[in-house]
Amino acid sequence: MISWKNLNTLASYEKLAALKGRVNLAEAMSGEGGAKRVAEYAAPMAGGLAYNYAAKAVDGEVLDALQALADEAQLTEKYDALLGGEIINTGEKRRVLHQLTRGQQAGAVVVDGVDKRAFYVSQQQKAAEFARKVHSGEIANAAGEKFTTVVQIGIGGSDLGPRAMYLALEQWAKQNNTLKLEARFISNVDPDDAASVLKSIDVAHSLFVLVSKSGTTLETLTNEAFVKDALKNAGLDASKHMVAVTSETSPLASSSDYLAAFFMDDFIGGRYSSTSCVGGVVLSLAFGPEVFARFLEGAAQADATAKEKDIRKNPAMLDALIGVYERNVLGYPATAVLPYSQALSRFPAHLQQLDMESNGKSVNRFGEPIDYVTGPVIFGEPGTNGQHSFYQLLHQGTDIIPLQFVGFRKNQAGMDVDIQGSTSQQKLCANVAAQIMAFACGKADDNPNKAFAGGRPSSIIIGDQLTPEALGALLSHFENKVMFQGFCWNVNSFDQEGVQLGKVLAKRVLAHDTDGALKAYSELLDI
Amino acid sequence: MISWKNLNTLASYEKLAALKGRVNLAEAMSGEGGAKRVAEYAAPMAGGLAYNYAAKAVDGEVLDALQALADEAQLTEKYDALLGGEIINTGEKRRVLHQLTRGQQAGAVVVDGVDKRAFYVSQQQKAAEFARKVHSGEIANAAGEKFTTVVQIGIGGSDLGPRAMYLALEQWAKQNNTLKLEARFISNVDPDDAASVLKSIDVAHSLFVLVSKSGTTLETLTNEAFVKDALKNAGLDASKHMVAVTSETSPLASSSDYLAAFFMDDFIGGRYSSTSCVGGVVLSLAFGPEVFARFLEGAAQADATAKEKDIRKNPAMLDALIGVYERNVLGYPATAVLPYSQALSRFPAHLQQLDMESNGKSVNRFGEPIDYVTGPVIFGEPGTNGQHSFYQLLHQGTDIIPLQFVGFRKNQAGMDVDIQGSTSQQKLCANVAAQIMAFACGKADDNPNKAFAGGRPSSIIIGDQLTPEALGALLSHFENKVMFQGFCWNVNSFDQEGVQLGKVLAKRVLAHDTDGALKAYSELLDI
Repeated sequence: MISWKNLNTLASYEKLAALKGRVNLAEAMSGEGGAKRVAEYAAPMAGGLAYNYAAKAVDGEVLDALQALADEAQLTEKYDALLGGEIINTGEKRRVLHQLTRGQQAGAVVVDGVDKRAFYVSQQQKAAEFARKVHSGEIANAAGEKFTTVVQIGIGGSDLGPRAMYLALEQWAKQNNTLKLEARFISNVDPDDAASVLKSIDVAHSLFVLVSKSGTTLETLTNEAFVKDALKNAGLDASKHMVAVTSETSPLASSSDYLAAFFMDDFIGGRYSSTSCVGGVVLSLAFGPEVFARFLEGAAQADATAKEKDIRKNPAMLDALIGVYERNVLGYPATAVLPYSQALSRFPAHLQQLDMESNGKSVNRFGEPIDYVTGPVIFGEPGTNGQHSFYQLLHQGTDIIPLQFVGFRKNQAGMDVDIQGSTSQQKLCANVAAQIMAFACGKADDNPNKAFAGGRPSSIIIGDQLTPEALGALLSHFENKVMFQGFCWNVNSFDQEGVQLGKVLAKRVLAHDTDGALKAYSELLDI
Repeated sequence: MISWKNLNTLASYEKLAALKGRVNLAEAMSGEGGAKRVAEYAAPMAGGLAYNYAAKAVDGEVLDALQALADEAQLTEKYDALLGGEIINTGEKRRVLHQLTRGQQAGAVVVDGVDKRAFYVSQQQKAAEFARKVHSGEIANAAGEKFTTVVQIGIGGSDLGPRAMYLALEQWAKQNNTLKLEARFISNVDPDDAASVLKSIDVAHSLFVLVSKSGTTLETLTNEAFVKDALKNAGLDASKHMVAVTSETSPLASSSDYLAAFFMDDFIGGRYSSTSCVGGVVLSLAFGPEVFARFLEGAAQADATAKEKDIRKNPAMLDALIGVYERNVLGYPATAVLPYSQALSRFPAHLQQLDMESNGKSVNRFGEPIDYVTGPVIFGEPGTNGQHSFYQLLHQGTDIIPLQFVGFRKNQAGMDVDIQGSTSQQKLCANVAAQIMAFACGKADDNPNKAFAGGRPSSIIIGDQLTPEALGALLSHFENKVMFQGFCWNVNSFDQEGVQLGKVLAKRVLAHDTDGALKAYSELLDI
C-alpha cells in the first residue's frame, strides 16, 4: 500500500536532517581516503556510464539515512505504480507513461482498450518508415529531389529536449556517416527566430515537423503560418513539406495540410517527450531510425536500473536523494549542470525545463501548501567554457552550489591535436578531474583572496563516449532523478499550472481587454 | 575623500534593512495605482531604452533609503575614481579602463607616458582599417578571393561577450545590408567544438581571429593549433588567414604567424572587453566599422548616464541598488535574465560571466572575509521560450527569483505574420507585459495548485528596436550595474582568483603529477 506523505513528516527525514554537517568533504577527499572514495562511491549506469559521487558530502551513515528515506518514502514502489499506469499526475488526473515510449518496458498499460506501449511503438514505427522513405527519396519534394533539411517547429518540451538530443549526436552522426538530414529548430514567437532559420536554409529541400500536442500552442501555430508563408512565397505547396506530431484528438490530426501525422497523447508530458515521436520523428529523419532505436535502448536500460531498491545500485534514485539532502538539509539554492562535452551544449537548457518545470511547486500532490523548499534553480554551460565564466562564483562565492559534472573519455568527431604533450581531449578530461578536486578540497593561502574554502560538492557521470545509448541513459537518468525527487517532496512533477496565468493575461493584452498596470505596459510596448 | 567600507557597516544599510517587507507588490501593482507606478517608476537610458522598475518591491521610502545608501557608499565618486584611472582592481594592482575603450569618454588617463584612451582608439582604428581592406578585397586569400567568414578563437570574455553581441546584431545587419562576413566562434578545449565549426565553414575563405590577452590561454592556443592543422591540410598558409588580438607584451604580439595584431592591455578585464578590440576586430569584420562605432556610441552614452548622482536618473545604479536590496535584505538567491528577443539568445550567458565572475566573491577589496552574501546566480533564456520551460518554478516555486526582462517594440528581420488578429511581434510583447503582471500580482484560486501568490519582482528594459546603439547601451548598463554592486559589497569586481586553482591542478593531471583522489579521477578518465 502506497502512502503519499510530505517530506518533513517522515521519521527518516528527521534522522537525515540530524546528520547535517557530518561529513567534512575537504578532509574526506584528501589523501588515500579520497582515492578510496572515488573507487567505492560509484554506481554503474546504463549506456556504459557510471555515476561517481565520491565528491558529495556523504558517508556510510548518510547513505544509510538516504536509504531509509528511500524506503520510507516508497520511492521504487511509487515508480512501479507509475509504470503500472496509476494516475500519478493527480492534478490533471492523468497517467504518466513516457517510460513506455522507450518500447522495451515489459508489461502492459491498457487504457480504453488500447495497449499504450503498442500505441507508442506503432507511432515510432510509422516515423521510422516515413524517415526511410524520405532518406530513399520515395518521399521527396515537388521536383522529385531529396529533402536535405528537417526543421522542427515546437516550443518547450517540443523544442528543448529534441534540440539538445540532436546537438548531442550531430557530430557523432557525421563521424559515423549516419547524418541523413541536417536539423534546425524554430521555437520562439519572436518573428526573428523563424526569419533567421528560414534565411539560413533551402526551403525547397526542407521538411518541417510541426509539434503541438494540443494543436493549439500559440507560438507553434504562429510559426507554422510563418513557414507556410515562406513556402508559398517560394512557389511551393506547404502540405508537401510538412508533417504533424500531435495527439489523435487535435485539430491537426487529420488535416490534409500535412504529409503525415504522428501521435502522442496526454500521458506524455512535453518535457518527458524526447523518446516519444516528439523526438522520434526529427531524430529518425536526422540520424536514421536505427540510431533513434539505440537511443531508446539506452533510456530503457536506465529505466530498468531505476527499479533497484538499493540506492547504491540505483544512480537516479541516489542522485535524487543526495539532491534532497543538499536542498532541504544543507539549504543550497541551486544546482549547476556542467557537461565537459561541447555536444551537450544545450543539455543544461533541457534539464532546466525538465527539473524546474517538474518540481518548481509550492503545493503537494493533494493541492496542500507545503512548508519546505522544493526544486532548485538549474543552470549550466559546457566545460571548459564555464571555467572561464561563472566558476569564479562557484569556487569563491558566498553560496554553495552543488555541481553535476558529465565527462567522456573519447570525443565524437575523431579530430584532435597534440599540443604541449597532450591532446585536447586529455586537456578536457584533466580539467574536469581538477575541478572536482578544487571544489571539494580547496586550498589554503595566506592571502584570503587566493584561498579556496573547498567543501563544494559535486558528482560526475563518466562515459566512454557520447553514443546514442549513452545519451538515452543520460536522459533517462535525469528524468527519473526528477521523478524520485518529486516523490520525496510529495509534489506532482507532471503538471505545470504555473504557466497558465501568463497565457491568460497575454490573450487579454492582445484583445485590448486590459486596465491598470497591464494596460500601461501594453502601451509602453506599442501593442 | 573616498572610503571603502563593508556594506553592513553603513548606517544607510541598517535603515534600508529595516524597511524589509514594507511594500506589498501585489497590492501596489493592482488597479490604477499600478498604472501610476508604471508611468512614474521609469528612467530613460541611452540608446533609446528605458528602465522601468514599477514591478520592483520599492516605494518612495525604499527609494530614498537606496539613495542614502548610494550616497553613503559614494557610488558615483568611486565610479569617477575608476574613470580617472585609480587602482580600483586592488588585488592585481591594476586600473580599470574598459569605459575608455568606447573612445568618447572625456579626460585622459596617462600610464607610463601613454594616453590610454588614445591607445584604445588607435587599436580600433587599426581594426577598422583592416576590416575595410578585407571588405574591399585588398586583403584576400592566397587565390585573391575575398574572405566570407570570420572565426573568433577565444574563451571566456574573448568569446561570450563578442559572440552575444554578434548574435544580437546578425539579423539586424542582414536586414540593413551590412552583414559583411558571417562570424563563427571556437572556444571549448573539447576538440569537438573546433571540429564542428571547421566542418561547417569554407576554410579557404575564412579569417581567424585569435584572442588571448596573455597569449598563453591553454584552450585558445590549443584551438589555434587545431585550426592551423586544418589550414595546412587544406594546403593553405595559416599566417595569411590569422590575426591576433592580444597585449603588446604577449608572445603573439610580434609573431609573423599573423596578418596583423591588435592590442588591449591589463586594464581591460576579459568580461569587460567587448568594446575593446576583443570585440572590435570580429564585429568590425562582420558588420563594418561604422556599425561597431554606433555600438560604442550607445555604450558611451550609458556610461555618461551612470555618472548621475540621483538614483532615479541613473538606471544602472538604481538597478544595482535594488539588486542589493533583494539579495541582502530580502534574501533572494538568484536573478533570471529574460530578454524577449531571440537576437539576445546568448546575452544571458554573457551576463552570467559578467556578473558571477565579477561579484562571486567572499572577501572584500582588502582581502578580508565578509559576513554577507554577494553576487547571486544569474541565468536565463529568451522569452517566450522560457515561459514553456522554467517559468513554472519562477511562478510557483518555493524561492522568489527576481527577474530582469528586456523587450523591444519592433523586431529586427522585418518579416512577420498576422495570425488571429495580431503579429508575432505583438504576441511577443503581449507575453512580456502579461508575465510582469502575473509575477507581480498573482491570482487567487480555490485550488491552491492553480493559485499564484504573486509578489515576484521584475524590471523591464524597453526599447524601440535592438539597434547597435541600443545594444551598446544595454551592455554598458549591466557592466555598470555590476560595478556599482561591487562597490556596495566592497568587493573587487575586476579580478578572478577563483579560476586559478583548477588551472594549477589540471596542469598537474596532464603532467601525471597526482596522487589520492585526483589520481583516481584521472585514471577513471583515461588521462
